[in-house]
Amino acid sequence: MIQSFNPPVRTLMGPGPSDIAPRVLAAMSRPTIGHLDPAFIQMMDEIKQMLQYAFQTKNELTMPVSAPGSAGMETCFVNLVEPGDKVIVCQNGVFGGRMKENVERCGGVAVMVEDDWGTAVSVDKVQAALEQNPDAKVLAFVHAETSTGAISDAKALCALAREHDCLTIVDAVTSLGGSELRVDEWGIDAIYSGTQKCLSCPPGISPVSFSERAVEAVKARKTSVPSWFLDTNLVMGYWGAGAKRAYHHTAPVNALYALHEGLVMLQDEGLENAWARHDKHHQALRAGLEAMGLKFLVAEGERLPQLNSVFIPEGVDDAALRTTLLNDYSLEIGAGLGAFAGKVWRIGLMGAACTQRNVMFCLMALENTLLAQGISLEAGKAGQAALAVYQ
Amino acid sequence: MIQSFNPPVRTLMGPGPSDIAPRVLAAMSRPTIGHLDPAFIQMMDEIKQMLQYAFQTKNELTMPVSAPGSAGMETCFVNLVEPGDKVIVCQNGVFGGRMKENVERCGGVAVMVEDDWGTAVSVDKVQAALEQNPDAKVLAFVHAETSTGAISDAKALCALAREHDCLTIVDAVTSLGGSELRVDEWGIDAIYSGTQKCLSCPPGISPVSFSERAVEAVKARKTSVPSWFLDTNLVMGYWGAGAKRAYHHTAPVNALYALHEGLVMLQDEGLENAWARHDKHHQALRAGLEAMGLKFLVAEGERLPQLNSVFIPEGVDDAALRTTLLNDYSLEIGAGLGAFAGKVWRIGLMGAACTQRNVMFCLMALENTLLAQGISLEAGKAGQAALAVYQ
Repeated sequence: MIQSFNPPVRTLMGPGPSDIAPRVLAAMSRPTIGHLDPAFIQMMDEIKQMLQYAFQTKNELTMPVSAPGSAGMETCFVNLVEPGDKVIVCQNGVFGGRMKENVERCGGVAVMVEDDWGTAVSVDKVQAALEQNPDAKVLAFVHAETSTGAISDAKALCALAREHDCLTIVDAVTSLGGSELRVDEWGIDAIYSGTQKCLSCPPGISPVSFSERAVEAVKARKTSVPSWFLDTNLVMGYWGAGAKRAYHHTAPVNALYALHEGLVMLQDEGLENAWARHDKHHQALRAGLEAMGLKFLVAEGERLPQLNSVFIPEGVDDAALRTTLLNDYSLEIGAGLGAFAGKVWRIGLMGAACTQRNVMFCLMALENTLLAQGISLEAGKAGQAALAVYQ
Repeated sequence: MIQSFNPPVRTLMGPGPSDIAPRVLAAMSRPTIGHLDPAFIQMMDEIKQMLQYAFQTKNELTMPVSAPGSAGMETCFVNLVEPGDKVIVCQNGVFGGRMKENVERCGGVAVMVEDDWGTAVSVDKVQAALEQNPDAKVLAFVHAETSTGAISDAKALCALAREHDCLTIVDAVTSLGGSELRVDEWGIDAIYSGTQKCLSCPPGISPVSFSERAVEAVKARKTSVPSWFLDTNLVMGYWGAGAKRAYHHTAPVNALYALHEGLVMLQDEGLENAWARHDKHHQALRAGLEAMGLKFLVAEGERLPQLNSVFIPEGVDDAALRTTLLNDYSLEIGAGLGAFAGKVWRIGLMGAACTQRNVMFCLMALENTLLAQGISLEAGKAGQAALAVYQ
């Protein structure tokens, strides 16, 4: 007979899920109510309002998709891309590749703009692609590449797209709540994120927002949206304005309690304070990692504070080290993805995991474990370097 | 400033979500761990094993889709239906109509078999449709119609489909864990369910299972699956057998803790005992409702024990009565859907909500509220009739 599952208590400093705020876990276990209960509908309105704040937008179509970030991505593509549509897709990591897959499964044509993994999307290359493809309908790119830790200039890319009368689809899975992001000011048309990164919630929900231009584009479609579940025309019957909500699917009630609580925390901290917190702890972690002799994958100026990719030193057994961290410290850091599997570690500092305690704990655990693997470094130096940043 | 949300405590006797077992809510708030953590992967294997038990199947492709039941439905259709494929769709309520939508968005051709809402799917009509459409690839029907409370003869329908070399897609959202269901013995090819009905979990996850024949049909596709998120070829890289799990999307970790706990409860009770419990409390509720003079929408023999649809008596204000139940008793019962909006109530007895306490409480609350609306009935008779069933 199978027994109840009692998970180990981890410190989550990988690419997400990150540590969940205890307040959020408590909210998640509150009594379930109906998805059409008047009390629930009021809570939905509050979620929308707080998501608009987090995204810095007034977009009416701002809501949480009832599934993880990959479904948020798919929501953007299936609603905006019709068979034959040309989409310029920027790839500088794993998730640009997934965008290409989405375009092609919608029957669209992906024009790829490739950059080295670990660098930002090149604004110049995107400009050239827009000039060479005046018939492109959409420019799609990843704001914060979770596979490498590079952040791209979303403001500049969206401005270019507007100049060329092109819609934008932006992946903000890892940036929302952690890095500067201004949907309305930057003119982003469709954006998706996830709850398990800087919003300090469990995985499973994907906030999305569509501009008026994007909504018009959905309305102007010649074909029906291929997904019934993700069709914004239908979903907004439930998530739209007004007291009357049409049943579409049964909302994931308790997961939305969690998101509500995570958003209340973000509101209470203040968005710009949250961005500054991610940057501060990143600086401390960086000082410590560099004091250990570790090198960053991403050049300064293109680094995402909440995801720190460092090269694995020569002679270190990647899997063995991560297993030691997990077994001896109950600490999870991320493995490399795709081209960087076995070559980098990805150390997350996201949401409730972005604290001084976690920075110091991670540096100590990593230092001990590297020493045990025979790497030559001066014990204690990493912690001192990090502390100096805080003082 | 928006405050934390503290939901009212309800008794949920609508069409789902139903009352969540306190054990399940507690499980949901356990500390989040990574979706590739060895402890999590072991828990995933236990979920698969317990889902196989719940579905009564040995199907290797048995797993929980990371989204609500509507996405489970879409998983079955997008993987099995290619452009031009003919699908016989049985409609005897809301959800058959949603199946038709799914077929058409996949580019398939839906051949409809219509039955009156509130009746079971006619086996004779399905036989005729199969004979008239020898080129049909799939027969799709709803086992337990949540919009009406009618149960159809899944065993007979699947046997017919096999005779005509047709795959089956079966909606078991409301039947799984509540009514007899034997995927392997009945020869069901693709089936989906939801967590918020008889599994006593919050909404948000959809268990699915595909037979070997269905898996072969997916492999034999000429076109790629239109959804990246729901493509079983990709999802099974993460949910498949073996210790090596390829990242596909980030699993909804805490929602899966909840499902695991709900399935442990089902395992501990025993599947046939759970079916019998749903039937027993249905008989008691039925006796009470009939003692109040209420008439069932569905004929005896086609009634789903866990969803009791009764006609609203002449002269009763539907919305006012349900509002009174919600405000004065914190009791939710379901409104009618589609053609039955304003005409019936749907009283659920699902999972942890299927108890003697809820039966008696609902009868008492309904009796008081009907009396207050001027309906003539003998006070106390309903409760006595229900009690007699238990004695």
